[in-house]
Amino acid sequence: MTTTPRTTPAVDASASAHTTPAQARRQYRDGLAVPSSGWAVGFTQANLVVLPHEWAYDMLLFGQRNPQPVPLLDVTDPGSARTALAPDADLRTDLPRYRVWEDGSLVDEPTDVVDLWRDDLVTFLVGCSFSFEMALLDAGVPVRNIEQGRNVSMYRTSMQCRPAGRLSGPLVVSMRPIPASQVVTAVQVTARMPDVHGAPVHVGSPSSLGITDLASPDFGDAVDAYDGDVPVFWACGVTPQAALMASKPPFAITHAPGHMFVTDVPDSVYRQP
Amino acid sequence: MTTTPRTTPAVDASASAHTTPAQARRQYRDGLAVPSSGWAVGFTQANLVVLPHEWAYDMLLFGQRNPQPVPLLDVTDPGSARTALAPDADLRTDLPRYRVWEDGSLVDEPTDVVDLWRDDLVTFLVGCSFSFEMALLDAGVPVRNIEQGRNVSMYRTSMQCRPAGRLSGPLVVSMRPIPASQVVTAVQVTARMPDVHGAPVHVGSPSSLGITDLASPDFGDAVDAYDGDVPVFWACGVTPQAALMASKPPFAITHAPGHMFVTDVPDSVYRQP
Repeated sequence: MTTTPRTTPAVDASASAHTTPAQARRQYRDGLAVPSSGWAVGFTQANLVVLPHEWAYDMLLFGQRNPQPVPLLDVTDPGSARTALAPDADLRTDLPRYRVWEDGSLVDEPTDVVDLWRDDLVTFLVGCSFSFEMALLDAGVPVRNIEQGRNVSMYRTSMQCRPAGRLSGPLVVSMRPIPASQVVTAVQVTARMPDVHGAPVHVGSPSSLGITDLASPDFGDAVDAYDGDVPVFWACGVTPQAALMASKPPFAITHAPGHMFVTDVPDSVYRQP
Repeated sequence: MTTTPRTTPAVDASASAHTTPAQARRQYRDGLAVPSSGWAVGFTQANLVVLPHEWAYDMLLFGQRNPQPVPLLDVTDPGSARTALAPDADLRTDLPRYRVWEDGSLVDEPTDVVDLWRDDLVTFLVGCSFSFEMALLDAGVPVRNIEQGRNVSMYRTSMQCRPAGRLSGPLVVSMRPIPASQVVTAVQVTARMPDVHGAPVHVGSPSSLGITDLASPDFGDAVDAYDGDVPVFWACGVTPQAALMASKPPFAITHAPGHMFVTDVPDSVYRQP
């Protein structure tokens, strides 16, 4: 079990919720290395995957073929650190913490990647379940990991993604315990948000996904279920990281789990009518 | 104005509506070269774009950046003539008619492309508005081009797609005259089908799209509007063909307008709840 280290935020939590996305990014750029959950509430956060151009086609195709775990919100031009999702942001500095990968192995977790940047790097920004957690709360569905102040539980499954060129790997899912009477609402609310993973892939029965122990997630924290809760599983944006670990491209950069890219795009843009 | 030649179907129209997708493809494979509108009703039809692997990244990125005109339903591995959308189909023979492009110019319209196939060709299958026309009819919204037995009217607009590498070009739209009282229904019905172009991009006012004369479409047929109809514009799957014409890759294959690939996927798969 890999538990994300929880860093005590250096700022007041309720204040961070009301920062603008630009203010949040400026604090991260200045070196604040805290999980971004709860920051700039109402604005979409994104997973980050950076690969050399020589691997970019495989990643783009991996996203096309696996849209639930890898909903691509933007793809940059080679070498560019700019995205349409936040025109004034610098993707090399504006996340709270990064991960650097060589041949599929984690080699560093820096707070910026300026010195590692190259002209051939392509950045993929991938939708994140933080957006639909707000929609669940708005619909009256409790989100246990938020209640308990923990990172969501994530698991490698026995289901394989559809491969794309040299990229392959397991589907990674996030799990939220949902009161049985509200599972239908949770399905309906998230189904309307396909760009941020959409409807659950699975309800109940962890074993049929190859998950043996809900208390031992592969990423994130264990989250306590209450009596009457059912485990509900969504495709997870950590899936591309699992594919990098399985497929071993020579070089890659991602965000550190929970340390996302805060965009200027309101969550409502990704909610369908 | 380019009018698609209308070929008299060699089979009874009501019979073709009730063929299975596999039966339709077999007749096209055997040489029947007719528009596929009205065939195998209830199953998704797709636009086809085939490019050398060296251009495939640009096309894939063009689709990611322009999902309304270019909703990618499947992308094949290089050289493969197989698609997950119809596992027994052969993409080189099973469309009623193809177009072959060299340096952005149309050079041939054959009924198969077996002799032109190469190991480096990648096929893109793109959602088609035929799927949402059935949904409009189901909702009681008249579809004038079907009533009048014509191909839908399509126009190059003054709006540019977001470029991707070497690929750029104008947004192409299809236009359907919709009774004013049913425009809202038409928006709601098609908004639920983002994989087949989704909600309209524009309602009324052709001139603000740079369209000077609705009676002179750039592709397809002119369609008569009735009193009280409003022109409603949807992003169109001919957009990639316009990008090929503008960007001039050395070699490409597409379907001929209206002569689509009939998949095994029911339209209902692309209707959201």
